Amino acid sequence: MSRHCVSDELGEHSMEINRVSSSHRHAETMPYIQRVGMPPKQTLWEQFFGTVNETFFSDDPYRSFRNQPRSRKFYLGLQAVFPILEWAKGYNLTKFKGDLISGLTIASLAIPQDIGYAKLAHLPAENGLYSSFVPPLIYSVLGSSRDIAIGPVAVVSILLGNRLSSEINPSTDAIEYRHLAFTATFFAGLTQFLLGFFRLGFLIDFLSHAAIIGFMAGAAITIGLQQLKGLLGISNFTTKTDIVNVMHSVFRSAHHGGKKNNKLFWVPAIAPLISTILSTSIVYITRADKHGVQIEAIAIGRTFASMKDYHVDGNREMVAIGAMNMAGSLTSCYVATGSFSRSAVNFMAGCNTAVSNIVMSCVVLLTLLVITPLFKYTPNAVLAAIIISAVLGLIDIDAALHIWKVDKLDFIACMGAFFGVVFDSVEIGLLIAVCISLAKILLQVTRPRTAVLGKLPMTNVYRNTLQYPEAAKVPGVLLVTVDSAIYFSNCNYVRERILRWLTDEEEEIMKGENLKRIQNLIVEMSPVTDIDTGGILALEDLYRALQKKEVQLALANPGPLVIQKLLDSDFVSLIGEDQIFLSVADAIQACTAAAQQLP
Amino acid sequence: MSRHCVSDELGEHSMEINRVSSSHRHAETMPYIQRVGMPPKQTLWEQFFGTVNETFFSDDPYRSFRNQPRSRKFYLGLQAVFPILEWAKGYNLTKFKGDLISGLTIASLAIPQDIGYAKLAHLPAENGLYSSFVPPLIYSVLGSSRDIAIGPVAVVSILLGNRLSSEINPSTDAIEYRHLAFTATFFAGLTQFLLGFFRLGFLIDFLSHAAIIGFMAGAAITIGLQQLKGLLGISNFTTKTDIVNVMHSVFRSAHHGGKKNNKLFWVPAIAPLISTILSTSIVYITRADKHGVQIEAIAIGRTFASMKDYHVDGNREMVAIGAMNMAGSLTSCYVATGSFSRSAVNFMAGCNTAVSNIVMSCVVLLTLLVITPLFKYTPNAVLAAIIISAVLGLIDIDAALHIWKVDKLDFIACMGAFFGVVFDSVEIGLLIAVCISLAKILLQVTRPRTAVLGKLPMTNVYRNTLQYPEAAKVPGVLLVTVDSAIYFSNCNYVRERILRWLTDEEEEIMKGENLKRIQNLIVEMSPVTDIDTGGILALEDLYRALQKKEVQLALANPGPLVIQKLLDSDFVSLIGEDQIFLSVADAIQACTAAAQQLP
Repeated sequence: MSRHCVSDELGEHSMEINRVSSSHRHAETMPYIQRVGMPPKQTLWEQFFGTVNETFFSDDPYRSFRNQPRSRKFYLGLQAVFPILEWAKGYNLTKFKGDLISGLTIASLAIPQDIGYAKLAHLPAENGLYSSFVPPLIYSVLGSSRDIAIGPVAVVSILLGNRLSSEINPSTDAIEYRHLAFTATFFAGLTQFLLGFFRLGFLIDFLSHAAIIGFMAGAAITIGLQQLKGLLGISNFTTKTDIVNVMHSVFRSAHHGGKKNNKLFWVPAIAPLISTILSTSIVYITRADKHGVQIEAIAIGRTFASMKDYHVDGNREMVAIGAMNMAGSLTSCYVATGSFSRSAVNFMAGCNTAVSNIVMSCVVLLTLLVITPLFKYTPNAVLAAIIISAVLGLIDIDAALHIWKVDKLDFIACMGAFFGVVFDSVEIGLLIAVCISLAKILLQVTRPRTAVLGKLPMTNVYRNTLQYPEAAKVPGVLLVTVDSAIYFSNCNYVRERILRWLTDEEEEIMKGENLKRIQNLIVEMSPVTDIDTGGILALEDLYRALQKKEVQLALANPGPLVIQKLLDSDFVSLIGEDQIFLSVADAIQACTAAAQQLP
Repeated sequence: MSRHCVSDELGEHSMEINRVSSSHRHAETMPYIQRVGMPPKQTLWEQFFGTVNETFFSDDPYRSFRNQPRSRKFYLGLQAVFPILEWAKGYNLTKFKGDLISGLTIASLAIPQDIGYAKLAHLPAENGLYSSFVPPLIYSVLGSSRDIAIGPVAVVSILLGNRLSSEINPSTDAIEYRHLAFTATFFAGLTQFLLGFFRLGFLIDFLSHAAIIGFMAGAAITIGLQQLKGLLGISNFTTKTDIVNVMHSVFRSAHHGGKKNNKLFWVPAIAPLISTILSTSIVYITRADKHGVQIEAIAIGRTFASMKDYHVDGNREMVAIGAMNMAGSLTSCYVATGSFSRSAVNFMAGCNTAVSNIVMSCVVLLTLLVITPLFKYTPNAVLAAIIISAVLGLIDIDAALHIWKVDKLDFIACMGAFFGVVFDSVEIGLLIAVCISLAKILLQVTRPRTAVLGKLPMTNVYRNTLQYPEAAKVPGVLLVTVDSAIYFSNCNYVRERILRWLTDEEEEIMKGENLKRIQNLIVEMSPVTDIDTGGILALEDLYRALQKKEVQLALANPGPLVIQKLLDSDFVSLIGEDQIFLSVADAIQACTAAAQQLP
């Protein structure tokens, strides 16, 4: 009863197959002809442009420009570059009140943090404060987030300090080290600017959530270990950050101290420790950053934006932060970015616009004028306490447990990042996390799941028999699904696995568990999102292998990309257009009807 | 009318939702309760074991061992190691006749090929012939393919010659060069053996069909260019293989010749060229390898095995070929593998078992005894002709055109491999091809397609509105599908893209094209084969963003992996279990019913 025709009219291929509406169960009812649809044929340029567009402009940044007069477009473009134009015109005293209070609040948090973080980067305290003065001013003009608070952050500071101190010794060549830090800041800014400008911000997505959790915890432990220097008053400390080197330094120093004065070596060690425990407790009780996990300015901006329902363009933010770091590097600042703890405080304190950043930056300027001469008296141990308490919030054990519960492979990536940072370096930790995450994606594409489907009782719905044990196999038909695009990396596996399902089924029949010989193998293609030439070759091999066994191959519901490629490669004419169905139900109907017509 | 209950009995989570059978269109008919199924809960070990099993033992190599007595198992194990036991017992004179004829035929092809290919590897002709003597004997005992013919092949020879000659000059340090070649052969064999033994053969799948086409064509051109040395009688030739270096050598030599004798420099160049054109034509007319494209012994074995309907285990083959190369390296052979051209001849000549390899090896031995003294007279130009004619078959323009037609990205990988080999080296060509192929997979996972679905007229089937223009949107409901697993690499994109579909839809409504406000957003999860913690966070963000817009989120047909993780991460309790449906039709039905109950 199955008829088909291939029409090639108006430049569009399309294929008609006989379709029995799934709402009619009996073959006697009038068949309704339904095509397996084809997307409109695209030229090579349209395909290419479409892919580029989805990759780089998936957030449709030009939406507001559409259908606007030219003058309006110019104004919108200016606004896109300087978001200050957007909010400045509606600015009033009420808004300023909120911004003033929140600006003062974050300044009080920023000043001790800046001093501590500058220490992590092996830089003088002034440079930390400068970084909370110039960059926020520039960000307030260029940035689109209204809640983010700009300044140095712990993880970036340790990264910078760790990397640069392996090149130049910060204690002996202090001036050269500072120049290197500003150069690094400039190039970090340039990289951010270019990534944003060329809309490559999506590359950041390759650092998975799980990897960030592990990475932050590892960095926190590394930072804490480095503070042992200040806590224990060790002068000849390693510049490396991994646990083995740091512990080696600590024990060597203890041994050294022990030699000089066997009984009292713990006295200089314990004095700063006690002062630290006290001050840490105070800072911990008063600190505001409870669960700061995200490192990344864009993620922070988005979090608060979604709370206030405005849109933050990740790539535009990268341009703003890059520009601010480039300018900062010329004014003795080191790398600054959005700080989660300060942004949270900013938000809570009721900030309205980026003016709170300007307020903070003014307060920091005053501080610089007033207290800089006092910096030489800052006790190392108290600074260490500030840092340790700040990084404690980076260790998120609950999140790690949640990841373990939900996804074991994610947990491995998380632990890989953690142990990489703790036992070697930040770079190795990042590398391990990215590699595990990519390997996970590749594993899924190399060994996709295949499953046998069955009919759910009293429905026309076909589902995985493992997920739905009540789903019943159709006699004489093997219904298989493949859970991935069919690519060169998995095509051999997919072909062999489908043939193995068939062998398994045939063995069951031999044992008499199922009496009817398999005559049809239907592959449900809904999850097969794409196919390449290797995959098509594998399907051809599968078809030939099945022909030898006198089993008819049929495909159900191929997607737009897949059906296009199957047509282009003549696979459709190989297996016959009448073997490609709109849905599994149709394919089963056709198979059953064909089997009944046989003698 | 939608009721649900979560039952947690017998250690299995399962969720019941109200399901209206899709065969009943009207809500008045008795609803049938259908669960969104859960696969049986697996322990961590079972999950791990299952993944390992599918990755390394997807071909189920122990199937024949199952349910057998111990003595039979031992015999089957012995047979698995020495497949000769399998076919030796049924061997008879008729089979030997076929093997004798085919063995003699492939020997006549092998001898000139061996001499030519040895030259490509910068080795004496004897070593080429040895490689068609020892390895085939060992393969006939250990190998499971009955049609494959073993010997040196052009691509491997050029690879070896190219790589080794950059270390040791083969013309000045001939003996050391040979030792290096045998050492390389030993380690190549060891690598093959270990890859096969640890069932890592699947790694080869990462070299895509398209990449192989480009790689082979590039290698063919490289080999041909190297033969210009023999053709043009140039003595001071480069050992590099890239086109720039080779052309530089040719022109330098022409210039050099030109200086000596301005008018007659072309005479020494053209004499071997003419003899080559003649001999090439003869070889080309008589040659048997029409379309040899595959390089890989396993692919060759499988091709012929599928024609004769027996099974070749790729990993077992790698063990056999590895063992044969290790043994070969100890007896002055260089790397041998399955040769496509000879295997095709072997098959055509009617071989029955690996005995044809033994026959060939005996003929080669005789040749070695008789004609070795004559090798010094072999004209370089004629050898060059043999080689060029052999490699011409490696350039498969039809296949490249087919790839272009079917899949543009595959074609880029193909061309990347081709130009990499031609302009730089074999390693760079392979690297480019693998990188492009992997980038293609990652692109699909980073930017999966999303689409709006509509209802096909007169059915309960919902399909992509681009693929099926007749599919009608349901008023008040936005139905979106995501064409990939939702991972950290795409979760931000997926969330933003779905929200953009909603904005698009709302804009259309504003324009009055569609009067009903969107109240429900249904995500069809059939193609979403997996999700990770990042993906779940993105879904949570999506849910919250939709809550703000007063749009209800619902999921249709989540797969076994996905529903498990959504439950474990409490996402199901966040959006409500009654918002997860067995199929799109059910979800639509529930939404419509809920909308009707509103005032």
